[in-house]
Amino acid sequence: MGIIVQKYGGTSVGSIEKIKNAANRVVQAVENGNKVVVVVSAMGKSTDTLVNMANEISNKPAKRELDMLLTTGEQITISLLTMAIGELGVEAVSLTGWQAGIITEADHGNARIKDIQKEKIVTYLNEGKVVIVAGFQGITEMGEITTLGRGGSDTTAVALAAALSAKKCFIYTDVPGVFTTDPRYVNGARKLHSISYDEMLEMANLGAGVLHPRAVEFAKNYNVTLEVASSMTEETGTLIEEDVSMEQNLIVRGIAFENDVTKITVSQLPNQIGTLSGLFSLLSKNSINVDIIIQNETGSKTVDISFSTSRSSLEDALAVLKAHKETLGYEAIRHEGDLAKVSIIGSGMISNPGVAAKMFAILAENDVTIKMVSTSEIKVSALVDEENMVPAVEALHRAFQLDDEENE
Amino acid sequence: MGIIVQKYGGTSVGSIEKIKNAANRVVQAVENGNKVVVVVSAMGKSTDTLVNMANEISNKPAKRELDMLLTTGEQITISLLTMAIGELGVEAVSLTGWQAGIITEADHGNARIKDIQKEKIVTYLNEGKVVIVAGFQGITEMGEITTLGRGGSDTTAVALAAALSAKKCFIYTDVPGVFTTDPRYVNGARKLHSISYDEMLEMANLGAGVLHPRAVEFAKNYNVTLEVASSMTEETGTLIEEDVSMEQNLIVRGIAFENDVTKITVSQLPNQIGTLSGLFSLLSKNSINVDIIIQNETGSKTVDISFSTSRSSLEDALAVLKAHKETLGYEAIRHEGDLAKVSIIGSGMISNPGVAAKMFAILAENDVTIKMVSTSEIKVSALVDEENMVPAVEALHRAFQLDDEENE
Repeated sequence: MGIIVQKYGGTSVGSIEKIKNAANRVVQAVENGNKVVVVVSAMGKSTDTLVNMANEISNKPAKRELDMLLTTGEQITISLLTMAIGELGVEAVSLTGWQAGIITEADHGNARIKDIQKEKIVTYLNEGKVVIVAGFQGITEMGEITTLGRGGSDTTAVALAAALSAKKCFIYTDVPGVFTTDPRYVNGARKLHSISYDEMLEMANLGAGVLHPRAVEFAKNYNVTLEVASSMTEETGTLIEEDVSMEQNLIVRGIAFENDVTKITVSQLPNQIGTLSGLFSLLSKNSINVDIIIQNETGSKTVDISFSTSRSSLEDALAVLKAHKETLGYEAIRHEGDLAKVSIIGSGMISNPGVAAKMFAILAENDVTIKMVSTSEIKVSALVDEENMVPAVEALHRAFQLDDEENE
Repeated sequence: MGIIVQKYGGTSVGSIEKIKNAANRVVQAVENGNKVVVVVSAMGKSTDTLVNMANEISNKPAKRELDMLLTTGEQITISLLTMAIGELGVEAVSLTGWQAGIITEADHGNARIKDIQKEKIVTYLNEGKVVIVAGFQGITEMGEITTLGRGGSDTTAVALAAALSAKKCFIYTDVPGVFTTDPRYVNGARKLHSISYDEMLEMANLGAGVLHPRAVEFAKNYNVTLEVASSMTEETGTLIEEDVSMEQNLIVRGIAFENDVTKITVSQLPNQIGTLSGLFSLLSKNSINVDIIIQNETGSKTVDISFSTSRSSLEDALAVLKAHKETLGYEAIRHEGDLAKVSIIGSGMISNPGVAAKMFAILAENDVTIKMVSTSEIKVSALVDEENMVPAVEALHRAFQLDDEENE
């Protein structure tokens, strides 16, 4: 009898009805002969409600107290889900993060898991009980309650799966799996049967909200097999495991995209050691997230640096740069808004050097101008005008044959 | 610099505005040179909301899980209050029941405090911080979250005051103190300056909802001075401490009353050892609470037993008695509804044997028939017709001079 971990996100436990539905799935898994550990998020928008209460009191509430506040959300869900499973005649027991032995660093609001003291969970599993664990939370060695930050419940689930050597970790959510691209925008978007950790990591980093990159990384490091599936259907979801694509034909497995991107160019900076690091340390210190970076020598003595950032960071970035004009020593700043980033992702491109060229050709054929480019081993991203975003994705989706079921 | 404990009930922290108000009071106490420990309840009706959610899932939710659920209510309040105090520039730290070292028995839903491991609180106090503790909750030695049952937050506050040798424990609520009788019914009702533990205990047991009898008992046992006061005014409340009345003139300190009382008479039971215990064990086993009991020999071989119970228990009590007619061996049952209990309370009556007689005389003068009587050292209770309840209380209030400020 193997152990499986199931994780239900906020939308999957967003009402009493949905909690009962989740309880049914848990009982089903028990009846199929599994030992089951369940990780849950807070119900629906309840975390937002708590955050709003804190904001009514303080515009910068102490992080320790915010953790104290927010961890109540998951604690409510674990107790209700446990009751619902009990109603179905199956023994279950709820555990908060600290009761489940999830030990974290002391970084309130964004703590990393250090260790899982799994004895209590193992004892309950051996007693034949389903164990329901509060996601997103843990405890420091000093007994302080912490939260794991964004994607925290996914990370809890994967970490427990790793610690318990679970045979599989199911991530139940409101979509039926991982898609080749966002089905809300692209008609031909198709659910993938499987995807590798690295591909999923790129997809997740590029905004495919279905799974947090941190959890994917954890799964990759501990070789935990994930399945992302809908909590509302019986449909098989998408498997995330190692080396899926190697034996297969598909070079590009998915296309991610996001809008609200801005490009900033800082021109004629002094061409010397430390220019790049000086500029980006400054931005980082001011909490401005930078994505693509391009450096261009404009002469032997000067250099132009362009980078992309989100629209919401534009004002801050410009203000910081202007305030440090003297120190940085640049000549001028330009910026260009209303941009979007389109990325193709696939492990197959490692051994197919022409993929980036093919992407550029497809975009050119469709009259899409490329503003910036960034590549990794399994990804190519291009910045384009926002109005070209969806047409570009559709063209790429067709050209790389992602809408063709046969290809997977 | 002494320690004080302040307890804010649900209505006193029922909104963000009220939490800010409580924060102001806490800061005031700090500025007055106190080390302050604060105990809070869940916000307003939030516990009811949680209970309703549980009831939507199960009509008999597991008590362990109900404790898991309900303890989130106080955890929300402690974090918000701590943030609000922080906003006022005073350092504060929140602690759940388990973090505060409140060790309880394993009786979920109604756990008694076994021990308080106060080291963490003491450390924070010595660092100059205000400590905000979640009321109503604790932890077993096995790490299980428990709740203390009704009046739990009052008990937490008093227990902490005892463990920390606090100079005073303030119970802030939505009324300005303890009254001679219920001001909603009796015009002359007057707030008491002070009252003894035993008197308060009788008042609390007789339904004066301001303070739970369990907390009063705890305070008496550990000699903790209490002050019940309004959280919305600066007015001094009512002191509860030992031997208040001994040096004073007042024989009766308060009058309590409740309606919805029913009297049941079981007639011609066998007059033998075990009749009384047999009858009341049976009722107790069926969770029927009995208040006043009277036994009357009706002949050498038979006995009549009457007892009072709440109207809501009447049906159950009659059903249980009828089902056991054979075993109990009685002849008939009668019952009389629409009754009320009126009680006078005062430590002074120990040394004043005529107090009960005076009470009966006053009631007789006012044409109030007494149906049953029960006395303790500091209390006399009489069952009367419900319609006579308020007139009886008013007459007693006047006759024992409770409306006269001079008397205290």
